[in-house]
Amino acid sequence: MPFVAVEGIDGSGKSSLARGVAASLESSGHKVLLVREPGSTPLGEGVREILLSPTTGELHVWAEACLFVAARAELVRREIQPALAEGRWVITDRYFYSTLAYQGGGGGADIETLRRLNLEAVGGLVPDRVFLLDLPVEIAKERRQRPADRIEARGADYTSRVRRAFLAEAERDPARFLVLDARSTMEECERLARQDLLNRQG
Amino acid sequence: MPFVAVEGIDGSGKSSLARGVAASLESSGHKVLLVREPGSTPLGEGVREILLSPTTGELHVWAEACLFVAARAELVRREIQPALAEGRWVITDRYFYSTLAYQGGGGGADIETLRRLNLEAVGGLVPDRVFLLDLPVEIAKERRQRPADRIEARGADYTSRVRRAFLAEAERDPARFLVLDARSTMEECERLARQDLLNRQG
Repeated sequence: MPFVAVEGIDGSGKSSLARGVAASLESSGHKVLLVREPGSTPLGEGVREILLSPTTGELHVWAEACLFVAARAELVRREIQPALAEGRWVITDRYFYSTLAYQGGGGGADIETLRRLNLEAVGGLVPDRVFLLDLPVEIAKERRQRPADRIEARGADYTSRVRRAFLAEAERDPARFLVLDARSTMEECERLARQDLLNRQG
Repeated sequence: MPFVAVEGIDGSGKSSLARGVAASLESSGHKVLLVREPGSTPLGEGVREILLSPTTGELHVWAEACLFVAARAELVRREIQPALAEGRWVITDRYFYSTLAYQGGGGGADIETLRRLNLEAVGGLVPDRVFLLDLPVEIAKERRQRPADRIEARGADYTSRVRRAFLAEAERDPARFLVLDARSTMEECERLARQDLLNRQG
């Protein structure tokens, strides 16, 4: 049970949950690598710069998808696989389900083509467990404490499609996903996530 | 017959042929756009920087493929499609066959997955005509007047697989490809390419 992805729309508390789960595993004596897409590889930094640069403009949905997949392929080879090989747990803040949900569900790119591409690009490395923080779009927007970025600025209809696509992934693979109601407190979500990992280790 | 791709291994004379064909069409009164991958879009420039940066290191084959496809998706939407819509000819120095040949044939990524990805990313925009400059790998290496770049440095076995993959694409779609023997002079290749375009314009 060493590779865990945390997914959800922005404002769902994803990054807090990923940090909380990592800290909790560390305090139980596990070695843990916490990563965040597009990741800290040289390519990930380059992709981040492109996505944040004001000169980039609005990208075509497949250009956006391919940038994330390129960074993911590197993150898996340079950080995730070596850590797993050393026996560490890996917690990732977003994984390929985000590409399926954002560029597929939100942006309209064909989800099955995106899925095949991602599986090839990560060499078939699927997380052992996915925590999906689910939250109504209006509440997520209220919770965001900063100006909307390029993707968040696409509005509530886009984000609703992203949310539905995440839930469809969870329905498609219920043994792998745990959907957490992010309207609860973060403490409660963390407690459920920790309990889930303990039960599955047992 | 307005969208033409020129393909081939490095040192085959691809860029010269693309320029020659564009100049010849212009001198016949056509409006022509000549582009070169990864292209002059903001994303294309970012991708070029990543590929040339010494900090990037050796990229995983799918990371490399996805960077080229991302840049191609933008180049098609921002430059190629608008030019075709205005009735201009478009000549491109490399197109998605290069990804199939280099990252597929050379790098071992699954060619059919690459093909589906590329077709989705370019919205099904296939060139009306592809000129493939074919040349034995040893001769291409001798002709190169500069130090090997990241990809050329992968050596003769890699480049031989790339060459075979280009030829396999030409065999797969013989009505679209014209294979030119690049051991001939560039004048002869240009003459054959011009003649071919004239014949097909009827």
